Amino acid sequence: MKKILFSCLFIFVLNLFTNAQELKSPDGNLKLEFHLDSAGSPVYSLDFKGKEVLNKSKMGFILKSDILLNKDFKITDSQFQSENSVWQPVLGEQKEIRNNYNEMRISLEQEKSKRKLIVCFRLFNDGLGFRYEFPVQENLRHFIIQEETTEFNLTGDHKLFWIPGDYDTNEYSYTTSKISEMQALVYDAVHVPLAAQSTIKNLATQTPLMMKTNEGLYINIHEAALKNYPAMCLNVNDKTFSLSSHLVPDAVGNKGYIQTGSFTPWRTVVVSDDARNILASKMILNLNEPCSFEDVSWIKPVKYIGVWWEYFTGVGSTWAYSDNQDVVIGKTDFSKLKPNNTHGANTKHVKEYIDFASSNGFDAVLVEGWNEGWEDNTAFKKERIYSFTKAYPDFDVKELSEYAKQKKIKIIMHHETTSSASEYERQLNDALDFMTANNYNAVKTGYVGPIIPRGEHHDGQQMVNHYTYVATEAAKHKIMVDSHEAVRPTGLHRTYPNWFAQESARGTEFESMEGIHPDHTTILPFTRLMGGPMDYTPGIFQGDLSVYGSKKNKLSTTITKQLALYVTMYSPLQMAADLPENYIRFKDAFQFIKDVALDWDETYILEAEPGDYITIARKTKGKQEWFVGGITDENSRTALIDFSFLPAGKSFTATIYEDGKTADYKTNPQSYNIRKITVNSKSKLKQKLASSGGVAISIK
Amino acid sequence: MKKILFSCLFIFVLNLFTNAQELKSPDGNLKLEFHLDSAGSPVYSLDFKGKEVLNKSKMGFILKSDILLNKDFKITDSQFQSENSVWQPVLGEQKEIRNNYNEMRISLEQEKSKRKLIVCFRLFNDGLGFRYEFPVQENLRHFIIQEETTEFNLTGDHKLFWIPGDYDTNEYSYTTSKISEMQALVYDAVHVPLAAQSTIKNLATQTPLMMKTNEGLYINIHEAALKNYPAMCLNVNDKTFSLSSHLVPDAVGNKGYIQTGSFTPWRTVVVSDDARNILASKMILNLNEPCSFEDVSWIKPVKYIGVWWEYFTGVGSTWAYSDNQDVVIGKTDFSKLKPNNTHGANTKHVKEYIDFASSNGFDAVLVEGWNEGWEDNTAFKKERIYSFTKAYPDFDVKELSEYAKQKKIKIIMHHETTSSASEYERQLNDALDFMTANNYNAVKTGYVGPIIPRGEHHDGQQMVNHYTYVATEAAKHKIMVDSHEAVRPTGLHRTYPNWFAQESARGTEFESMEGIHPDHTTILPFTRLMGGPMDYTPGIFQGDLSVYGSKKNKLSTTITKQLALYVTMYSPLQMAADLPENYIRFKDAFQFIKDVALDWDETYILEAEPGDYITIARKTKGKQEWFVGGITDENSRTALIDFSFLPAGKSFTATIYEDGKTADYKTNPQSYNIRKITVNSKSKLKQKLASSGGVAISIK
Repeated sequence: MKKILFSCLFIFVLNLFTNAQELKSPDGNLKLEFHLDSAGSPVYSLDFKGKEVLNKSKMGFILKSDILLNKDFKITDSQFQSENSVWQPVLGEQKEIRNNYNEMRISLEQEKSKRKLIVCFRLFNDGLGFRYEFPVQENLRHFIIQEETTEFNLTGDHKLFWIPGDYDTNEYSYTTSKISEMQALVYDAVHVPLAAQSTIKNLATQTPLMMKTNEGLYINIHEAALKNYPAMCLNVNDKTFSLSSHLVPDAVGNKGYIQTGSFTPWRTVVVSDDARNILASKMILNLNEPCSFEDVSWIKPVKYIGVWWEYFTGVGSTWAYSDNQDVVIGKTDFSKLKPNNTHGANTKHVKEYIDFASSNGFDAVLVEGWNEGWEDNTAFKKERIYSFTKAYPDFDVKELSEYAKQKKIKIIMHHETTSSASEYERQLNDALDFMTANNYNAVKTGYVGPIIPRGEHHDGQQMVNHYTYVATEAAKHKIMVDSHEAVRPTGLHRTYPNWFAQESARGTEFESMEGIHPDHTTILPFTRLMGGPMDYTPGIFQGDLSVYGSKKNKLSTTITKQLALYVTMYSPLQMAADLPENYIRFKDAFQFIKDVALDWDETYILEAEPGDYITIARKTKGKQEWFVGGITDENSRTALIDFSFLPAGKSFTATIYEDGKTADYKTNPQSYNIRKITVNSKSKLKQKLASSGGVAISIK
Repeated sequence: MKKILFSCLFIFVLNLFTNAQELKSPDGNLKLEFHLDSAGSPVYSLDFKGKEVLNKSKMGFILKSDILLNKDFKITDSQFQSENSVWQPVLGEQKEIRNNYNEMRISLEQEKSKRKLIVCFRLFNDGLGFRYEFPVQENLRHFIIQEETTEFNLTGDHKLFWIPGDYDTNEYSYTTSKISEMQALVYDAVHVPLAAQSTIKNLATQTPLMMKTNEGLYINIHEAALKNYPAMCLNVNDKTFSLSSHLVPDAVGNKGYIQTGSFTPWRTVVVSDDARNILASKMILNLNEPCSFEDVSWIKPVKYIGVWWEYFTGVGSTWAYSDNQDVVIGKTDFSKLKPNNTHGANTKHVKEYIDFASSNGFDAVLVEGWNEGWEDNTAFKKERIYSFTKAYPDFDVKELSEYAKQKKIKIIMHHETTSSASEYERQLNDALDFMTANNYNAVKTGYVGPIIPRGEHHDGQQMVNHYTYVATEAAKHKIMVDSHEAVRPTGLHRTYPNWFAQESARGTEFESMEGIHPDHTTILPFTRLMGGPMDYTPGIFQGDLSVYGSKKNKLSTTITKQLALYVTMYSPLQMAADLPENYIRFKDAFQFIKDVALDWDETYILEAEPGDYITIARKTKGKQEWFVGGITDENSRTALIDFSFLPAGKSFTATIYEDGKTADYKTNPQSYNIRKITVNSKSKLKQKLASSGGVAISIK
């Protein structure tokens, strides 16, 4: 690592007079300007290749009660520094990540109160990161943030890919609209059935927020390294096109409890005139702290199936062991309950899954519904719904642990908390010990419904701390964590690589409920996935749920698009979500899921337009083997796949999983064709994709 | 145990017509009437010896949102049952406790909604207990209590010994006044400096509430077995003299989250025309569940000294190791901080305490300030202030553990949480393991300041569950708990005898702060102590704090009264709170503290008038040895001590610790005299007590 510190005296002296600072990205394309306005308020702006990305935007805080930490400043120091180094993620889209930025740290002090604040900017070739730092100082030690007043002032009425601002859920469908159109669309966007909703009253949206300007500039706003701080939503002014930070409050309306000697998460603005660069950006990871564990040998990618989709299909399988809802953990003797005989997580059935996983090369089987309490799982206000150490009478922990071991399969633990974080923390230590004792090395956590402690929100400071606490406690037991309904990720999987996937967006489960739009997965990589891997749980082959029973849901994609998602939606944790019977039925298509890698040497974004299409190629880690995934929205299209990512001078066999000629996600989703061609680094393939279709290619 | 169930058909049939029920206490003195009024609302009233104690008072609940569970009922069943048995508390004021009551259980059902509610009354000779039971039923499973609407309608403008209604503290001084005078006095009562206050906006008070009628009837209202429910305050109508339940809300204003198949705590009304019977009542203990532990051999009374009072005296000793407030647990290396050299809990100093404890027959030494974090102990909003497993650099855990073991002394662990219950629960398991590993068997917990989870209250349902959780987790480690600033006790020490003492009232520490009234300890046994033992920490001999430094506080009692408190304030945990040097100085008076027992075969309430005086004699458990304590308020008096509690026909030597002739708590508090007399069961002693003075007698 090479660090150059040039806190130049002459710049410092200059600044005291001009009161303005400038920083450029290493390639010179991005330019940041900073100054204090006449009121002493910090102001920044951002240009890309001479075009304005963000107009003059104010920064700072209002502290409780009504202490302004956003004006009356003078600059006391500015320091410049550069970084250009390479690091290796434990798991990732590429083997090596370059961390190259120029940094500017501005020290501010309020004239009268002598309160100090530092603003630290890092300009990468792909975007801007900045954070606030609260140095240890005499006149400020503990304070409460009433609001962060950071602005992101846009230059026009951009196109936005947005979900409503909400303190408790990210599981909305995306709406694509101009900023000026949002107000008319927000009612419908908000009024959807979700288990826990706390929508922001004013016009607001969530991050990662993807935008496109009329001039074809792509802008993505999010945050990096969210720790001990609430998540940031964005207020939207649809007249001035100004966005401003809106932190998630706690139970009493406060936004954050801060002790000086600390800093905020990074506010991130990824910018490019090519949408592919947004997906290729590793800036958010670069802004996170390095891995905090010494031994990472136990952190592995996981391909899994699970006792899961059968709960959603309408086939009649249940999480609960009995129909008696009047159960009380610690009091009810579950062995005395009358079994409902629809309980999915029974020993025999789980063994079938283990057998299927074992014979098809999977790593693991997720089992939901194994533990006491599911009878009452919708009791959202109940502090203690589940035991995390007591299995149902028909789930033999020891026997299954032994059986899985023989079959070289791991069982993935499931901890649905129904958002009683208080109770989960009480049981956590015992639950992790129980996992270790029974050979589990990964847990899927769930946070359905409103939070306990009551009044807290999924995305507030206390819950942010909770998720990190769970991840770090799990790490002590060498356990990997896949959190569902937690706050959306901000690159913390660099620091805690065992927290290897999250849901935190509308995932496949909605295919069995209110549905997923065909463009959804062309947006997610530009939004939710900017923060980290998603356990999207693709792989649904039987998309017409009416075959199972009374449900009428139909999948929003073709089968081929389901395959392509394993490449376009990066995650080191990937599920084949459908029932084994459907994989047996479509054995040739299933082969792609069996083959596809989870960890990569290189990633090549071949084509990308948010809301329309994405084509990505990736090279398997440590192997001369590539996988390509291409998807489209409701419009069929022809993907142009350029194989120049292959090593020159060599030919490879490419197996192409393509939509059938008459394939269409509505009328003919199960039509696909598999063919083999020979490709080399000069090959270019024009590949037809059906309406909400896709293409998946494996190359050896 | 003898149980008679006579669910008499004829009574049942009768009731359906008369709609009225009657129950009498075993001795016939107390009579309860119950009926449904014309709106179908449950109503009860209570008589004592033909005099009304409570007028017709309504019962029930308002559920969220606005579901009335207090009217439209019909009676569907009534069952009667009696109990007359004896049980042995693990530790207590007497070896055996008689549990003798008549019970009436009324089953109610709402006409339209079919919601069911059961009211269970138990009438003892000393009072009434009643609770609500929520049976498992079809139309109600989970509900939120908006308010409990239980009334206690008094018959007149009684004299009350009251503290203001508050969700977060019981550390107020008592005000003695008529109900009609409360409104004029409440402003001064409320406006006092306390670390966490959430006073009820309307006129309200807390329980245990002691009252005296103009006719000389003594009435005490409290509750028993408070579990998974918020504590009850009482709204006061100073015109109608009606009291009504006011439950402590949670962070979002709800009062309680209930699943059917459960019940509320018991509402208790202890009644007598002799104040001594109020103190003698064991009704609240009888209404609690029996001990939940099989092995109780590890639960022992504890007499202790501690590194404690020196923090309050102004002598300059500090909890904190350094003066650097910018510390962060897990980040700050405390061994690198500059010591302030005033840190009380250092190895050398603690050894001095251990030596003193050992040579004076004590069981234990409390050490406050042993652990990292005290520099920032007033950071009330900070989630993580302390480590409960890392000692300060100058406190050698292993060395002190060994040293204490050699000297046959236990060190009492201290866990001040500054009310971050969230963080305490995260560390609890490790903290208890740490205690076990280092030979600790008791912990003093502390809850100074506002609660985290934020918005929750000390006395709300979630914190009630927290305290019970801590007590039961501690029990798994065979650790005893003495909780400070927790919800006031309700007899749960019967069920969890390791939770053997609490503070939960204004204790001796206030002698060094805003002061204690001379009548305070003549009221506490009638109020706070009705629920359970108090760690009042008496034994201050040097009451003039000006001898230490800049403080001007003067003790509110004579030395002799301090001695008497060891008898009048029952607790199996008793501290000799003063500095060792003062015990060396007043060695002869100190002898009483060394001698006094902590666990008893029998207790005799010889004289009692709330707010005025108390004289109690107790027989040491398993020994022919008695101790007598007598105290008075600011008025000197002559106590009449009748020794008829002694076995007949034998003489004993009584050592009398009495106020000196010129003793007076203001002008001459350290004047005392010690004399020996011979007594037998026919002896009667007229003993002069000084203003806020006392008498202490040991008999062998």
